[in-house]
Amino acid sequence: MNTEELRTPLGEKWLTTMDNDLLVVGAGIMGVASAYHLKKNNPNKDVLLIDRFPSPAQGNTGRSNAMFRNTFSSRDNQILSDASIDFYLHLQNELEIDIGLQPIGYLWLMSDGQLSASEPFLKQMERNRIEIRRLPREEVKRLLPGLEMSFESNDEAMLMDLPRIDGGVFGPKCGRLDPDKLVRFYAQEFSQMGGRVAFNTNAEKLLVGPSKRLGLDGEPFVWQDSRIEGVQVSGSMTGELRAETIVLACGAWGNELLEPIGIDGHVKAKKRQLFTVPAKGSDRLEALVRTEGFNPLGLLPLVILPKARVHFKPVSTENEFWIACEDEVNRPYIDIPAHDLEGYKAEMDFYDTSVRPVLSAYFPDFRNARVKAMWAGLYSYNTLDFLPFAFRENNLIVVGGDSGSGIMKGDSLGRIVDALYRGEDDALLYGDRPVRTSKIGFEKRDVEREEWVI
Amino acid sequence: MNTEELRTPLGEKWLTTMDNDLLVVGAGIMGVASAYHLKKNNPNKDVLLIDRFPSPAQGNTGRSNAMFRNTFSSRDNQILSDASIDFYLHLQNELEIDIGLQPIGYLWLMSDGQLSASEPFLKQMERNRIEIRRLPREEVKRLLPGLEMSFESNDEAMLMDLPRIDGGVFGPKCGRLDPDKLVRFYAQEFSQMGGRVAFNTNAEKLLVGPSKRLGLDGEPFVWQDSRIEGVQVSGSMTGELRAETIVLACGAWGNELLEPIGIDGHVKAKKRQLFTVPAKGSDRLEALVRTEGFNPLGLLPLVILPKARVHFKPVSTENEFWIACEDEVNRPYIDIPAHDLEGYKAEMDFYDTSVRPVLSAYFPDFRNARVKAMWAGLYSYNTLDFLPFAFRENNLIVVGGDSGSGIMKGDSLGRIVDALYRGEDDALLYGDRPVRTSKIGFEKRDVEREEWVI
Repeated sequence: MNTEELRTPLGEKWLTTMDNDLLVVGAGIMGVASAYHLKKNNPNKDVLLIDRFPSPAQGNTGRSNAMFRNTFSSRDNQILSDASIDFYLHLQNELEIDIGLQPIGYLWLMSDGQLSASEPFLKQMERNRIEIRRLPREEVKRLLPGLEMSFESNDEAMLMDLPRIDGGVFGPKCGRLDPDKLVRFYAQEFSQMGGRVAFNTNAEKLLVGPSKRLGLDGEPFVWQDSRIEGVQVSGSMTGELRAETIVLACGAWGNELLEPIGIDGHVKAKKRQLFTVPAKGSDRLEALVRTEGFNPLGLLPLVILPKARVHFKPVSTENEFWIACEDEVNRPYIDIPAHDLEGYKAEMDFYDTSVRPVLSAYFPDFRNARVKAMWAGLYSYNTLDFLPFAFRENNLIVVGGDSGSGIMKGDSLGRIVDALYRGEDDALLYGDRPVRTSKIGFEKRDVEREEWVI
Repeated sequence: MNTEELRTPLGEKWLTTMDNDLLVVGAGIMGVASAYHLKKNNPNKDVLLIDRFPSPAQGNTGRSNAMFRNTFSSRDNQILSDASIDFYLHLQNELEIDIGLQPIGYLWLMSDGQLSASEPFLKQMERNRIEIRRLPREEVKRLLPGLEMSFESNDEAMLMDLPRIDGGVFGPKCGRLDPDKLVRFYAQEFSQMGGRVAFNTNAEKLLVGPSKRLGLDGEPFVWQDSRIEGVQVSGSMTGELRAETIVLACGAWGNELLEPIGIDGHVKAKKRQLFTVPAKGSDRLEALVRTEGFNPLGLLPLVILPKARVHFKPVSTENEFWIACEDEVNRPYIDIPAHDLEGYKAEMDFYDTSVRPVLSAYFPDFRNARVKAMWAGLYSYNTLDFLPFAFRENNLIVVGGDSGSGIMKGDSLGRIVDALYRGEDDALLYGDRPVRTSKIGFEKRDVEREEWVI
């Protein structure tokens, strides 16, 4: 994208004065959605958005699989995602803003045992009018002729203990979008409303000061009230950016700023990898991309296999598949990730030993497929209940912990951040759905733990 | 203490075999209480307790203030502490085992505003039969003649915005004990029941393996079930200690073992400091140690001041005071603390600028008191709700997160670890009090957040 249009010359005003109202740190989905809703609802406030990268969505938002779904077991996740998806559909369909949204759907393939274990969660979705469809074995077989349903004579599959497929669960209000386009929408609107953006500006450190300055060396002492005065930055600007209120939307990197001042950022990160495989050159894989019967686009949905949550989606514009898997056990948690994104490289070996064997057992057409590109990003966990959080401590607001579903809840979280800023008890999500802001904080956290994780 | 009596020669049996039943890592209060209850209730099981230090309680248990109280706002904390205290009282009074227990009580001094804000929590205590006494201003004044109750003409106190004292809250089932003696009791009993102990044995790494080994290079893969096979150790032994079940009771150091294998240890650590001041040489401070009217021992209780939770207790055996304070804001959280305990040194400057000004404003007799000794330890937070946790993942049990109150809940937590091991839904705390084991885990966590924190 052309980032010049977002870059506003920043005068001295922004440095070392206390005149600024709001500083948002991080131009990933959480940061831009927050900045947008803050500026929209507080038009007279100065809002500055900074990011260490040269343009928005260059951290983990841009590296993610950028899928969306409303099919969560947790009532709270259902609301946060469903309202955000409605807003994104509104953008794409009513305002005709291209955010690359394709409602291809999600398809979970399962054994009988897994289907029964899922039933309580599916009932929870239906009770809350989250649309799902149960597909019997025969329908799955008919729609996906290239799928192996069982493995009686496949020694490798038996060794891997791969479950047979007895049916499927389909979520129609699910799909993919283009994270760059979505983030650009928020950032451009923010900019047009008068919000300021500074890229290549790294937040090095939060500056803590006393609420009432006494002029003593070493303030604030433990007997003083304190507040966050601003952020020390380097890069395009070097100095102290001061603001009345600071919003941290740094995803996996949040602890880096929060731990040194003794606030728990409540996130842990793990590397997650994506592998792309071209459909071009294989008639069968090209046909798989264009699988009919699931959505009006005539595309295969995101397919989640019944082992290690290996999943893949078609990217029709590129005529390719993106493949990933759940990668939990033995994959280290990182508390303060290194900045060096080179260290987040995907591992070919991981695809070969962990992903491909499962994928090609169920879909033999992938057996000889070659990986075209691969990359990794950081999945930012809130290990407590796998729901995002937004909390306020004095003049600091922190948003994050999306646990792999930041994009699909981003709009709702931006609205909650704005409500926290305005001191509202409730945030009004898209579609006029009220949500208590304290619900996703920590002091009065009141959410259902998510059980339907990919 | 003489640690030789605890050291059992460990044969090859302990290394590289799968014959061991239970391995407990960490000989602080959580580890020894767990080892004791595990061995007691599973006498036929081999239980090995290891610790990196040359004797037990040399980590943060031994560095703590070693106080106990049952005066929590959270019903769950009340039960965990009250039952543990009952067990400790039973040891000291009925079994006549000296654990240095002195029920001196806790005294919170407060302003009117603080007293009203506390009232809901006090009511919660009374509802649950946690004994507390409200002391009116006049009684506080009578019992503590050396206390400054207000600061109209004290500029420094006004600058620090010190609240006046309008009354107090006293908890009689609170006090101090000797952590070395308590831990020695558990370790010796454990040893006499046939438990084995290995000191100077550092757990370097948890060994993850597949539940069903296929003999492939790189196991376990994401499509395999896995388990913790053991612990790689160095020190008195070097090699792989294998066990059917592993219990981690490493306090602030837990993340070091858990993060690399992708399990959140749910603890963050902060440095907390203790300063000792002799009473000897000051008639007034000696008189303060021997304040009558609070407990049958004729000793001052632990006194908590109404600012920054500065608190101090008398140590009558040494004729001195131990002084500390709440040290939250701007004190960094540490996720994986360094082993180098030299780095945990107390800071004289912190006492001078943060602790002493508050203490000597309320108790001017401390104005000229000199610090005799000081040290620091790591306060191991569960920032979620400030209650401890014990959770099981497959064959791994993790206990910790006591948030500064490990000793006073240690016995209850040891019993819960044992119940988790035996797969019991309920643990029976001392005094036949049942507690659901899942309550303090994370999957079905069901505890009241603690609001009455020191």
